[in-house]
Amino acid sequence: MARPRPPHIVENILRAGEAVVVNDGYASASIASVARAAGVGVGSIYHYFADKEALLDWVVIRVLRPDLLLPSDLPIGAPPMAISEAVAPYLNVHVQLPCLHEAIARPADEPIVDELRTVIREFCDLVVRTDRVQTMVEVCSNDIEELRRAWYLDYRRMLASAYETYLRRRIEEGALRPIENPTFAARWLLDSAILFLRLRRLDYYPDELPTEHLSEHLVDMLLHGFAGTGT
Amino acid sequence: MARPRPPHIVENILRAGEAVVVNDGYASASIASVARAAGVGVGSIYHYFADKEALLDWVVIRVLRPDLLLPSDLPIGAPPMAISEAVAPYLNVHVQLPCLHEAIARPADEPIVDELRTVIREFCDLVVRTDRVQTMVEVCSNDIEELRRAWYLDYRRMLASAYETYLRRRIEEGALRPIENPTFAARWLLDSAILFLRLRRLDYYPDELPTEHLSEHLVDMLLHGFAGTGT
Repeated sequence: MARPRPPHIVENILRAGEAVVVNDGYASASIASVARAAGVGVGSIYHYFADKEALLDWVVIRVLRPDLLLPSDLPIGAPPMAISEAVAPYLNVHVQLPCLHEAIARPADEPIVDELRTVIREFCDLVVRTDRVQTMVEVCSNDIEELRRAWYLDYRRMLASAYETYLRRRIEEGALRPIENPTFAARWLLDSAILFLRLRRLDYYPDELPTEHLSEHLVDMLLHGFAGTGT
Repeated sequence: MARPRPPHIVENILRAGEAVVVNDGYASASIASVARAAGVGVGSIYHYFADKEALLDWVVIRVLRPDLLLPSDLPIGAPPMAISEAVAPYLNVHVQLPCLHEAIARPADEPIVDELRTVIREFCDLVVRTDRVQTMVEVCSNDIEELRRAWYLDYRRMLASAYETYLRRRIEEGALRPIENPTFAARWLLDSAILFLRLRRLDYYPDELPTEHLSEHLVDMLLHGFAGTGT
């Protein structure tokens, strides 16, 4: 039965749903919690969404694909794609690493530290820029095996491999110090940037580590770790 | 009512209890799960331990204080100290950082990279050596506020502050590059060593990162991060 849709109420429910999923997890999120967070009755939710699965899937998909239009007929049914299928389009549109890929495609720039700083900063900026999506994917990956595979196995592995290729190339050219294990070094870049730029919220004493300029200090330590000639 | 105690059964229950607490958490661990893991009946557990709290507290305390003797009378009651009070004696006996403290007490050694490598390696070794205790403390800290405070606020803060003191001293002497934020650098050492040496088990694709020599690669990247003169 087609009914016209008041967009702000649906958007309000989706925003409340995001907070609930991030807090409770995808599998544990309930319609009652979303209704409470949105300040509407449970009946209202079912007026706009066909069932819990349709609501939660739209909540997650809209974080990855904000461009996707909601159907105008009510109640809204399942999205046109599985959550894990929304990862690739997201990455294609929002996750570009032009500095890294240009660097891989050409011989070493002189001075190498300028190029390296650009490449490291590009990744740190990416981590900060995609924080909302990463949080959602991380939470849902506990319950959605396909998503976990698409993000952590395929995408992260691809990223690590691209940075490793870059490092190996520069080491072979003699532009970087002979880092003994470039596989480790690439993971070092990825994991420590994610730890310091995203997971600070798990920190036990956040007040003692200034978050201002955190990204700069991180770039500095990583840059010296890769390029350092101090030994 | 005093009864003689067959030590191997009690030790068996304590070991099973450790596995259950690490897996389920301190607050969620149940006598039934411990009994199942130990391969004994629930009644047996109550034969040896007065109640759930006495059992779980002994499970945790014994990881921190393996030297502490269990009472010989059954059923065993509460341990002689709170869990959070066992942290300080553990640290005093098992967590010594002589290289760091000697380095803080004297002017820079030449060459500085040898001293720095020793100081970094000492911390990495500590992380590996205390893995079992850290796992237990981490799990229980979610439920025991006093423990969280003793370990993460007091102990970790003290550690970070000692490394920061060392770094500041060497920077002032001109023996290390002028790291802009030694507070960050000290946390960088602590947190990334813990991430790479302990939390690899959370890894999504562990097979691709060789764990052999992980500590060496880590020391290498940290060492260059601190001492590097590549910029």
